Amino acid sequence: MVINLNGYDIFYEIKGNKDSIESVIMLNGLMMSTMSWYPLLGGLDNYKIYLLDFIDQGKSQKFDGKEYSQDLQKRILESFIHELDIREPHIIGTSYGGEVAIRYAIENSHKIKSLTLSNTTFCTNYLLQEIGRGWIDACEVENKRLFFKCTLSYIYSKEFYEERKDWLNTREEFFVKNLPSDWYEGIKRLIISAEDLEIPVEKLKNIKAPTMIISSDEDKLISKEDSKILNREIYNSRCVSIIGAGHAAMYEKPNEWVSIIKGFIENIGIDIKI
Amino acid sequence: MVINLNGYDIFYEIKGNKDSIESVIMLNGLMMSTMSWYPLLGGLDNYKIYLLDFIDQGKSQKFDGKEYSQDLQKRILESFIHELDIREPHIIGTSYGGEVAIRYAIENSHKIKSLTLSNTTFCTNYLLQEIGRGWIDACEVENKRLFFKCTLSYIYSKEFYEERKDWLNTREEFFVKNLPSDWYEGIKRLIISAEDLEIPVEKLKNIKAPTMIISSDEDKLISKEDSKILNREIYNSRCVSIIGAGHAAMYEKPNEWVSIIKGFIENIGIDIKI
Amino acid sequence: MVINLNGYDIFYEIKGNKDSIESVIMLNGLMMSTMSWYPLLGGLDNYKIYLLDFIDQGKSQKFDGKEYSQDLQKRILESFIHELDIREPHIIGTSYGGEVAIRYAIENSHKIKSLTLSNTTFCTNYLLQEIGRGWIDACEVENKRLFFKCTLSYIYSKEFYEERKDWLNTREEFFVKNLPSDWYEGIKRLIISAEDLEIPVEKLKNIKAPTMIISSDEDKLISKEDSKILNREIYNSRCVSIIGAGHAAMYEKPNEWVSIIKGFIENIGIDIKI
Amino acid sequence: MVINLNGYDIFYEIKGNKDSIESVIMLNGLMMSTMSWYPLLGGLDNYKIYLLDFIDQGKSQKFDGKEYSQDLQKRILESFIHELDIREPHIIGTSYGGEVAIRYAIENSHKIKSLTLSNTTFCTNYLLQEIGRGWIDACEVENKRLFFKCTLSYIYSKEFYEERKDWLNTREEFFVKNLPSDWYEGIKRLIISAEDLEIPVEKLKNIKAPTMIISSDEDKLISKEDSKILNREIYNSRCVSIIGAGHAAMYEKPNEWVSIIKGFIENIGIDIKI
Repeated sequence: MVINLNGYDIFYEIKGNKDSIESVIMLNGLMMSTMSWYPLLGGLDNYKIYLLDFIDQGKSQKFDGKEYSQDLQKRILESFIHELDIREPHIIGTSYGGEVAIRYAIENSHKIKSLTLSNTTFCTNYLLQEIGRGWIDACEVENKRLFFKCTLSYIYSKEFYEERKDWLNTREEFFVKNLPSDWYEGIKRLIISAEDLEIPVEKLKNIKAPTMIISSDEDKLISKEDSKILNREIYNSRCVSIIGAGHAAMYEKPNEWVSIIKGFIENIGIDIKI
Repeated sequence: MVINLNGYDIFYEIKGNKDSIESVIMLNGLMMSTMSWYPLLGGLDNYKIYLLDFIDQGKSQKFDGKEYSQDLQKRILESFIHELDIREPHIIGTSYGGEVAIRYAIENSHKIKSLTLSNTTFCTNYLLQEIGRGWIDACEVENKRLFFKCTLSYIYSKEFYEERKDWLNTREEFFVKNLPSDWYEGIKRLIISAEDLEIPVEKLKNIKAPTMIISSDEDKLISKEDSKILNREIYNSRCVSIIGAGHAAMYEKPNEWVSIIKGFIENIGIDIKI
Repeated sequence: MVINLNGYDIFYEIKGNKDSIESVIMLNGLMMSTMSWYPLLGGLDNYKIYLLDFIDQGKSQKFDGKEYSQDLQKRILESFIHELDIREPHIIGTSYGGEVAIRYAIENSHKIKSLTLSNTTFCTNYLLQEIGRGWIDACEVENKRLFFKCTLSYIYSKEFYEERKDWLNTREEFFVKNLPSDWYEGIKRLIISAEDLEIPVEKLKNIKAPTMIISSDEDKLISKEDSKILNREIYNSRCVSIIGAGHAAMYEKPNEWVSIIKGFIENIGIDIKI
Repeated sequence: MVINLNGYDIFYEIKGNKDSIESVIMLNGLMMSTMSWYPLLGGLDNYKIYLLDFIDQGKSQKFDGKEYSQDLQKRILESFIHELDIREPHIIGTSYGGEVAIRYAIENSHKIKSLTLSNTTFCTNYLLQEIGRGWIDACEVENKRLFFKCTLSYIYSKEFYEERKDWLNTREEFFVKNLPSDWYEGIKRLIISAEDLEIPVEKLKNIKAPTMIISSDEDKLISKEDSKILNREIYNSRCVSIIGAGHAAMYEKPNEWVSIIKGFIENIGIDIKI
């Protein structure tokens, strides 16, 4: 379905148990679309699950200018929740989606039931900016294989490369063949939009909703140090790491990833004190 | 309640939803008893939960000789499951309890629905043996405070010590005042019983039940390396680590700990492949 | 100076104390040349220091075909040591140079006085291959900035990016402007030449010379796990890690790097046993 | 030799090259004495090496009261350097000795040529205090074996326990048989003296002398986090970690340990900038 929000046509889907009074919103990482979540939904299908493509992702409208701040995506999310009247959602974001989720949550903590931040930072440091600029340059190259070699090798772990060689090759092949040139234009703007991410540490304290921080032991993009800072500053947060996974924890270790989130959101009301 | 198994009076309790057809058995760490689990059960109360004290723990019978192998506890567990006719339990063990669970699971994998091994090794290496022998010696000392200083400082993390100073002091105080001398005799035998733990790596492959391995980033007793070996050898296993926790992950980060397990056992039937 | 070895003109320089009877050979990483070592030589200038460019590096001859195995560089090194009659050198290799050093040392251990392997693996795993293939593709792109964004972001650590932004930019600028197109052709062949690196672990035992293994805590290309295997298999080896450094440890933390090596080679004769 | 400093008879020895104009002072860890350094001196014997026992260590005088602050040891060190007119020494401290060295260096940085801090913290956190109190209690127990089981298992790594079982047993045996009861009284006071160690992070900036920080990957007492803070705050510092070593890095990996220090102090004048 498509809804016009802040002047942009935003594509979304509703999955899981559409009659549930508990809602989950999944927020895409950079190169993802609503479809990317399909394999993972089985474990969460007792919830009403909202999937949406941000501007420049999947079937949502492309941005009609040169660049924008990720803050625009936050405003899209605000409107999305407001227009669809989603009450107290569990927001789950990975990477880029987690960043938008943080931007939203520091201003709207009271409106959400829980927050899950997977492989997410609160600050695009200079190394991340440079990696991003390399990816942007790669988008402009005729040889599309190059883009995937450069990005996937950062995103997946050594272990996953050993075990899932075929899957990675098929995926690369598919991407190379099927993604149109405006997809790459979108990716470039998405990367630029995250460059200004620099949430002051003290603002993280605004997030009062129960929060689960998921880190990966082998994430080459987001360090565990960043997850620890999120854990320290967000009062009501929990923090676990997935062993053997890289930045794409949700894909590399989907069972671990879904288990952690399911267990977390099912126990939201319970705060065990010993 | 008490049941006589293999000649020993074993104390157990049934908690949670007694009418549930899904059962969970929680297996104590060294210095624990059935009571130790009470604060954690809220998150799992839709299951029928069995708690039991091993020989030399809590209200179960003391061993009537000098020493025994942990294998005896495995046989107690076998009889317990058989006598109470517990069908396809989810077995959850922490540390000593996890070790007994591994011993059980390599022989009875088909009888269990899932296995959770928290802060558990499959081999009591020489350093662990020596730490244990120090604890045994400490049991014989009049000054009971010494025993707790020596053990708790290994079990809890630096972070927990900073944050929960009072709780740790109160706990130490309580232990020192309330534990009778035969408790220490039991602890000594329990430590000795684990000294022969040395499961050949290839036997771990016998465990076919879905398995969750929980590690802690700050565990001074069981290294993450051991968790990785369990994860590698147990085919259908998942592995996560709790950031900021020490060996007593279940007490230091109870919300993370229960979330991981709840999410895991609720999704047993679902094996996400991407 | 240039010497013809195995049919290739190989450029080399002699630095340090040319009258010293103790020789050091420094072996370049992928994108390095003899010049890359200049800033680091001050700390080792009591030795006679040999620098050389491998085939396809710096001022040495380019390869006259499509591709070759890194084994060719090993044979160049053999001839170099033989022709210049270098007796019992200390061989120091970083990354690609370390790989050539391993290939040489497993066959010629008795000929060398010591071996230093910095940020070196013994096996080009699939992830490394894919990263390399991305770099190869980047070589073919008109926009040379892309090549440096893709490579440098893997090579230097987050910390170094924060602290030495200007230096990195200047370096990128210099590279983009000054490197001729045949340099990129050489890099492509160098990367391919390392793809077949897969030394069986048991062959590492052939290395009997005292060996220092230098790892970096933040190396995104070579894991500490690999350094531990080298340390375990090479009997007379030592192993340290540089905290806060990435793959380019020698450039990121030059004082640490040179100190470790100097202390190591000055104490070769001393094997402390406690 | 014995010198009276601040009213205490302090035992010291001069080793290495007594004619060297460059001096090194080695500062003992808690349970060490001047003799503990003997096996390590071979690698540094071109320096004039001063070894000394602090109050309550080795052959130095015992303290004549109940307790004191580690600051007293700092004053002893001040007087030692002054009375023996040691000009610009290289100060090398491990653990307790490193703590005294920090206390000294923040006030006398201009008087020293370099500083090496091995397995050293600047703050006795609550967990360390509790571990110390356990050790104090263990000192009072008749069974001396207990004291060594409790301390050594914290000090040495798992790997060292596996490999050097016999050495550890012999050492334990020797200690149990040979250490007189006033040695334990001394240890108790030494532990208490370190309890007030809490150097404000900003005072570390006073240390301007070139500083080498040595950490161990498997140190159960001092975390790598502490070494990173020292590295960050001490402007002219370098920081390396020894892989596979525990708190007793100097004994577990003596070749690595001496190499790092030798390379560091031989290159003091050289500050490589790239």
